[in-house]
Amino acid sequence: MQIYADNAATTCMSQTAIQAMLPYFDNVYGNPSSLHSVGQRANEALTSARERIAKVLGCQAKEIYFTSGGSEADNQALLSAARLGQRKGKKHIVSTAFEHHAVLHMLKRLEQESFEITLLDVHENGIVSPEEVAAAIRPDTCLVTIMYANNEIGTIQPIAEIGKVCHERGVLFHTDAVQAAGHLHIDVKEQNIDMLSLSAHKFHGPKGIGVLYARQGILLTNLIEGGAQERGRRAGTENLPAIMGMTAALEEAAEGIDRNAARLTALRDKLIAGLSRVEHCALNGDAEQRLPGNVNFCFEGIEGESLLLLLDDKGVCASSGSACTSGSLDPSHVLLAIGRPHEVAHGSLRLSLGEDTTEEEIDYLIKTVTEVVTYLRRMSPVWRELQSGKRAYILK
Amino acid sequence: MQIYADNAATTCMSQTAIQAMLPYFDNVYGNPSSLHSVGQRANEALTSARERIAKVLGCQAKEIYFTSGGSEADNQALLSAARLGQRKGKKHIVSTAFEHHAVLHMLKRLEQESFEITLLDVHENGIVSPEEVAAAIRPDTCLVTIMYANNEIGTIQPIAEIGKVCHERGVLFHTDAVQAAGHLHIDVKEQNIDMLSLSAHKFHGPKGIGVLYARQGILLTNLIEGGAQERGRRAGTENLPAIMGMTAALEEAAEGIDRNAARLTALRDKLIAGLSRVEHCALNGDAEQRLPGNVNFCFEGIEGESLLLLLDDKGVCASSGSACTSGSLDPSHVLLAIGRPHEVAHGSLRLSLGEDTTEEEIDYLIKTVTEVVTYLRRMSPVWRELQSGKRAYILK
Repeated sequence: MQIYADNAATTCMSQTAIQAMLPYFDNVYGNPSSLHSVGQRANEALTSARERIAKVLGCQAKEIYFTSGGSEADNQALLSAARLGQRKGKKHIVSTAFEHHAVLHMLKRLEQESFEITLLDVHENGIVSPEEVAAAIRPDTCLVTIMYANNEIGTIQPIAEIGKVCHERGVLFHTDAVQAAGHLHIDVKEQNIDMLSLSAHKFHGPKGIGVLYARQGILLTNLIEGGAQERGRRAGTENLPAIMGMTAALEEAAEGIDRNAARLTALRDKLIAGLSRVEHCALNGDAEQRLPGNVNFCFEGIEGESLLLLLDDKGVCASSGSACTSGSLDPSHVLLAIGRPHEVAHGSLRLSLGEDTTEEEIDYLIKTVTEVVTYLRRMSPVWRELQSGKRAYILK
Repeated sequence: MQIYADNAATTCMSQTAIQAMLPYFDNVYGNPSSLHSVGQRANEALTSARERIAKVLGCQAKEIYFTSGGSEADNQALLSAARLGQRKGKKHIVSTAFEHHAVLHMLKRLEQESFEITLLDVHENGIVSPEEVAAAIRPDTCLVTIMYANNEIGTIQPIAEIGKVCHERGVLFHTDAVQAAGHLHIDVKEQNIDMLSLSAHKFHGPKGIGVLYARQGILLTNLIEGGAQERGRRAGTENLPAIMGMTAALEEAAEGIDRNAARLTALRDKLIAGLSRVEHCALNGDAEQRLPGNVNFCFEGIEGESLLLLLDDKGVCASSGSACTSGSLDPSHVLLAIGRPHEVAHGSLRLSLGEDTTEEEIDYLIKTVTEVVTYLRRMSPVWRELQSGKRAYILK
């Protein structure tokens, strides 16, 4: 059996999305900026894609900026808000300790420009409270940036309430919705979102394309300078095939969102229940306020990397955390942020289910993960120390 | 007849490139950073693509950084050189007045950071001399950035000689090879190039993907912060399908480069000869030191935009200059840089041929452009003034 349970890292493209791209490789291949008919056909497709995406997100077409992906969108959102704030003497930003590195590393860069950053506690359940956001906002706060759903532990933040708090205090609110898009409802107006980032390859669309939504009136700072594409805010020939693929994938995801969420939530909860029977393990993040397909556990006494390699041998593709940081020896900053000690954070496993995950696969995952954890513990010196009482268990 | 003569704006993807992409949408779809086998298969493909591209450019795989396209590559190259220079107190950059906007606009931004920019004259023939580059280099020069071939008039710069001059003076040399790649030989070592940008969709590869070559030892400054992709220098999940498409397209172009250049040069020269018979017109840029497929004329007494629209009506897709600036009312900065006055620069036409352009199409282009120019002049008040002697001709 071969199970791909790493949909949070990237997804297999849907046939709908692939088919939507194909005509734009060698048929409608013009440069959308060209005046001639081949270019204008491309431009019409671009315009319609922008409108269709705006419809899904509940905004206007002119509020959609196409980027090369989620990281670029996050970077541009933060840089833009920082520059707007700076002009008014506001150089304080509120975020959380468990954002994606595209946000955290940009914040680091801004810190070097003497911005002050407040990283909110995300608690053991991996959820930020709107009250804490309110308390952190200062007169010089120019931006609150908090992700919609966490990429490792899948916890869903109360973004509509956070957005409300921000707007009451006149502060811009950006959310990295890279993990949420296609899985959770998005309505930027209702949810009080000023800026939002998404990435197509997380919802069965193509890699290399994303969206930055920026509410009308927010002047973006260019990350990439050059031609006048994207209303002068993002230079470079528009990646029309990818844009068309992303649009089809987003619509497809939006259309099936409730049906898929219900089915995946049931599978997720079965998987969580099954893995919870392993002794000395713990689910990371809130059990309910989490993405329908996200399961993330810490298993005491083992190393996440060995777990992954053995699982892979048994046909299971999983991860210990974010793909963007795999290969790094540091434990996940997300798990540390929810209070897992280093030694436990190292033994983490993320299983991220997809729309095609079956009940049979869940049974196989429970059985296989349990077996592999048991096997690894048998060989683990740490586990022996725990068992013999030389070391105290951290997880119950 | 339908003729696509705007290959400098973008190209139709080759079947080889499309086929090279397809397996990476829904077969080898893993995230190259994932540890499991689906991710590792993707990672192996990524590694091989990097090696194959390095081979074509004459460099090492680790000197290749994948970007979202030419603009991003240009931006990152310039920013990196500027930051390296700054640290040594060197804040002077040498470039030319007719670079692509991805370079010129980035230089403008650096100027706001008190960098000094020298834009060299490109003369009437559109070619910079290495001697002038040498004369412009100062003790505080940190970068020379000069394009390999101009995107509007196709003139080829003596980059190997320019690179030599730069190296003799210890100055970094970057070249925007977006128009050259796939059409002219590139060997970064032989040509003394420290950094080079290219964009796949200009040589029948996919849109949304490009390369920044940076010689080993040059520390790049990140444009996009986040994950550790591209050796920590460019965050965001690698766009593997596009990378595979680009690699196939670059190899295909490199393999046919001499054959295509010979054929296209003959077609180009026939087209130039044919259009030169129109009265009061002029070829823009050197007649020989130009891209095999590039033809660019100014026709006195007419507007480029009307010319394009009427040509489009007759099945000819062409442009007046760069697609990135079409829709702008300003005359081409490239044509102004080679000394064309405003009124003449407005009447420009760029015909950029492709590998599939036929001799029959050249005949049709000569006939159709001649007819349309004649027709437009008949209705042009400016042309009547020229004809009646009320206004003096600028072009012979």
